[in-house]
Amino acid sequence: MSKYVIGVDFGTLSARALVVNVDTGAELRSAMMDYPHAVMDKQLPDGTKLPPDWALQHPQDYMDCLAHVIPEAIRLSDISADDVIGIGIDFTACTMLPVDRHMEPLCFDPKYAGNPHAYIKLWKHHAAQQEANHITAIAKQRNEPFLPRYGGKISSEWMIPKLYQLLKEDPSLYESTHLFVESADWVIHQLTGTLARNACSAGYKALWNKQDGYPTEDFFRAIDPKFANVVDDKLNGALHPMGAKAGEITEAAARLTGLKQGIAVAVANVDAHVSFPPSGLTQSGDMLMIMGTSTCHVMVADEERMVPGMCGVVEDGVIPGLMGYEAGQSCVGDLFNWFVECCVPESYAKEARDHGESLHQLLTRKAQLLTPGESGLLALDWWNGNRSVLVDVDLTGLLLGMTLQTKPEEMYRALLEATAFGTRVIFDAFEDSGLPIRRLHACGGISQKNPLVMQIYADVLGREIRIARSSQTPALGSSIWAAVAAGHYDNVHDAADQMAGLLDTVYRPIPAHAEVYQSLYQEYLLLHDYFGRGENNVMKRLKRIKEQSISSAHIDQHEGGAR
Amino acid sequence: MSKYVIGVDFGTLSARALVVNVDTGAELRSAMMDYPHAVMDKQLPDGTKLPPDWALQHPQDYMDCLAHVIPEAIRLSDISADDVIGIGIDFTACTMLPVDRHMEPLCFDPKYAGNPHAYIKLWKHHAAQQEANHITAIAKQRNEPFLPRYGGKISSEWMIPKLYQLLKEDPSLYESTHLFVESADWVIHQLTGTLARNACSAGYKALWNKQDGYPTEDFFRAIDPKFANVVDDKLNGALHPMGAKAGEITEAAARLTGLKQGIAVAVANVDAHVSFPPSGLTQSGDMLMIMGTSTCHVMVADEERMVPGMCGVVEDGVIPGLMGYEAGQSCVGDLFNWFVECCVPESYAKEARDHGESLHQLLTRKAQLLTPGESGLLALDWWNGNRSVLVDVDLTGLLLGMTLQTKPEEMYRALLEATAFGTRVIFDAFEDSGLPIRRLHACGGISQKNPLVMQIYADVLGREIRIARSSQTPALGSSIWAAVAAGHYDNVHDAADQMAGLLDTVYRPIPAHAEVYQSLYQEYLLLHDYFGRGENNVMKRLKRIKEQSISSAHIDQHEGGAR
Repeated sequence: MSKYVIGVDFGTLSARALVVNVDTGAELRSAMMDYPHAVMDKQLPDGTKLPPDWALQHPQDYMDCLAHVIPEAIRLSDISADDVIGIGIDFTACTMLPVDRHMEPLCFDPKYAGNPHAYIKLWKHHAAQQEANHITAIAKQRNEPFLPRYGGKISSEWMIPKLYQLLKEDPSLYESTHLFVESADWVIHQLTGTLARNACSAGYKALWNKQDGYPTEDFFRAIDPKFANVVDDKLNGALHPMGAKAGEITEAAARLTGLKQGIAVAVANVDAHVSFPPSGLTQSGDMLMIMGTSTCHVMVADEERMVPGMCGVVEDGVIPGLMGYEAGQSCVGDLFNWFVECCVPESYAKEARDHGESLHQLLTRKAQLLTPGESGLLALDWWNGNRSVLVDVDLTGLLLGMTLQTKPEEMYRALLEATAFGTRVIFDAFEDSGLPIRRLHACGGISQKNPLVMQIYADVLGREIRIARSSQTPALGSSIWAAVAAGHYDNVHDAADQMAGLLDTVYRPIPAHAEVYQSLYQEYLLLHDYFGRGENNVMKRLKRIKEQSISSAHIDQHEGGAR
Repeated sequence: MSKYVIGVDFGTLSARALVVNVDTGAELRSAMMDYPHAVMDKQLPDGTKLPPDWALQHPQDYMDCLAHVIPEAIRLSDISADDVIGIGIDFTACTMLPVDRHMEPLCFDPKYAGNPHAYIKLWKHHAAQQEANHITAIAKQRNEPFLPRYGGKISSEWMIPKLYQLLKEDPSLYESTHLFVESADWVIHQLTGTLARNACSAGYKALWNKQDGYPTEDFFRAIDPKFANVVDDKLNGALHPMGAKAGEITEAAARLTGLKQGIAVAVANVDAHVSFPPSGLTQSGDMLMIMGTSTCHVMVADEERMVPGMCGVVEDGVIPGLMGYEAGQSCVGDLFNWFVECCVPESYAKEARDHGESLHQLLTRKAQLLTPGESGLLALDWWNGNRSVLVDVDLTGLLLGMTLQTKPEEMYRALLEATAFGTRVIFDAFEDSGLPIRRLHACGGISQKNPLVMQIYADVLGREIRIARSSQTPALGSSIWAAVAAGHYDNVHDAADQMAGLLDTVYRPIPAHAEVYQSLYQEYLLLHDYFGRGENNVMKRLKRIKEQSISSAHIDQHEGGAR
């Protein structure tokens, strides 16, 4: 009789449960449900308006989804809940909320229903930018040892800026909060009755380190005296490594989900890092590209090195016993989508319809007919800033080499190539820091859908690339950790050996292409450094002129109105 | 009883005759006809194939057009041919042909009907590039005094490279040719029976100078010993200033055109320079922008100065008694058209249709709502190289500052602005060379159709701009010269005073906009010099990589086929 594990992936807009054969990794069926409140970025359920850059979620949505997707996935897979031996979850992060001493979200309390700070701040809540800048400045000034682990910059998306924003804007709510927790850990508490904070989120998103713990009280005091005891007061609770068992399904959770009471629940994980084992990677020197709207790079190595521009290095953060590195490009699929929405003429849209293709498919088909270098174009992929070695959100995009003969597919291909060059800059940074990349796999939508992109990456990077078999690597990854937590495997290596898989396609560099891209990469680097390292700060100056133009236009309007 | 003059404008694809009241400049009706053979760039009438970059015309087309458009314009204007007192023509240049001793085009001789070199080489025949490079190199090497008058570079579009190509490729035809003449002068011969070469074409397109004449025999010998006597052998014939009377309508020409025998025919003119008087300009310090697919700048001044990148300075070349300067931007309307054809999404095309607008109108309407600097974008307008101070065809376009929020109208506006910055570079070069621009007028399609472009130019240039009233300035200009040749006015100043006119609209710089553009222009200059003056020759290197890619792809294909 086969046994199963379930992985639940909590994304930005929906949750998905996947049933997996624990011995073979075979994926049965999955069930998906959108969050009823989606992302709240305009108003709360009671109509309270939200300021710009806010992004909230509602905790009840996660429970409603659990109650639906788990039984539905079991039903569709035509298995018995009795054969499910464990469950794991992964989550966006930092996606955090305030809870009371009973682990009840404060927003469930009617007296806080109209208070935005009582809700879940989603990872992409960007309203703590000022706080993030302040915290980075203090850390730099104090030469805090943790700073190099985060590429020298604290993101507004992380835990400490979000906490500090809440403290500054609503000190009384801060006071009333018993704990702040990741949504991932709150859901695990709902399933097990236990608070088992996950070390992955804490490491990548809350400045926690296995050796040093959180930053010191002195550091938090330097940020703000009222913030000095934030760790002891608001973040306490033991941190648990991946693959550990957080607890067991409670009676209440069994009623909610249809799972058997008492089965193993794994410690939660972050949705990016959880994709590593199901992509067939567990060894030092392994690098994964998770390619979607943006690209996340996850790598593991024996040693800790300070890599310029990385987003974080966390011991045990990806695979127990290894240093887990995260890096990223903030704009990959988003860039291709921008181009398709903004820059492709009607005649192409018609041609795509006539061929029954999407515009991406049409452009890819046409771009595929070009040889490397043939377009004469070169781009800098900074449409959403640079979250790579330059760590600079104020950088913007560049396209160069156009003539009156330039065609849309040439520009499209130049953008694909630019993101590949951007990846190579990151890979060079890792290798130059003493972290050789020995194996390269990819997962995520683009890796499975666009062979042209993958061939360009192989050519530009000069490396073989293999693609994860699963199109749902986060959910499969969560199920792998569930299998470990359930004791079905001794460790994640054994679990991934059995449960992970790759597609047959291998993308290998074509020597003639790689040679041309070697030349183009040198040109990319020249522009990258000229515009990115201060020689010509035109991009920043244009942003300043833009801000002034918009604000003075605003004033003109008011003056005009007053006359 | 009113008297009239007729101006005939021979363009690239058609000829147009315009009837004008000689006292008031009032434009009556015009008639237009396409050249039956249009531009021959693939094959001759007998099916002989043409190599790449060739562009030929057929002389019979000009005569057929004359026979149609003149009587038709007279008929439509409802006047009597007896009241027409003179005719003038203007022509593209250098558009040249070989003729025999009877001034018969060689291509009329059946034995040459299949010889491409026997036909008219149109201005945009680009197959003499190698010859032009060679001639420029020799001129530089010999430090020829004429070279600075042409911005240091001989264009492949001009007379000498075209002649030299013919000599090299068909020495026997060269030998059999009695004379090479501009099509303009050949048409004047057809009307008057007289060869009255025009000094304007010779000055701007054949290296002729009022003081020095043509380059020396030594120079031509240095190009090629067989080329030494080209001037005496093949270009002889007196050169005539503008406004001079070339001759009178012959009996045969009267039969052909319906004009009265004996009326005055003005010496021909070049289609760009002829637009100066009808745009209301005749004084030292006057500058005209002729704005269409490309922009031609024509200026007159008392003194001769060597302006970097100008296309030519010719004494009496625009207005008798003054130095006439020509400069240009090789890509203006063409750039906007490229964008509309290549880069505007289907949703915009639909919106334009719903509003009954063209895409240009839609983009202009949306771009008009933006304030200067608001887009955060900046472009270099080099989609067709730089024919301005850098004189470099290998430069290419650049667009910088894009984000995921960037919209098509923002890019469109950035391109409009880039061409304005390009114009300012030219104006700065004139003024820095000691030629102050005291008055600025514009003519051509864009100047009348797009107020946004004109306002941006006024803001960027910090100058008032007035627009020629006529939408047919070349034909009106030819009629002004006809009026002078007919003796109705003593000189072109008096003629232009009466016959030229301006629109009421005056574009004046808006101080707040001019200030922002001052900052953006500094950024433009920084990029202009970085990419244009050798600091980073990436554009040239990309072109080289492109050429290699295309040629090796070609080889691959052949190899593939052979396997």
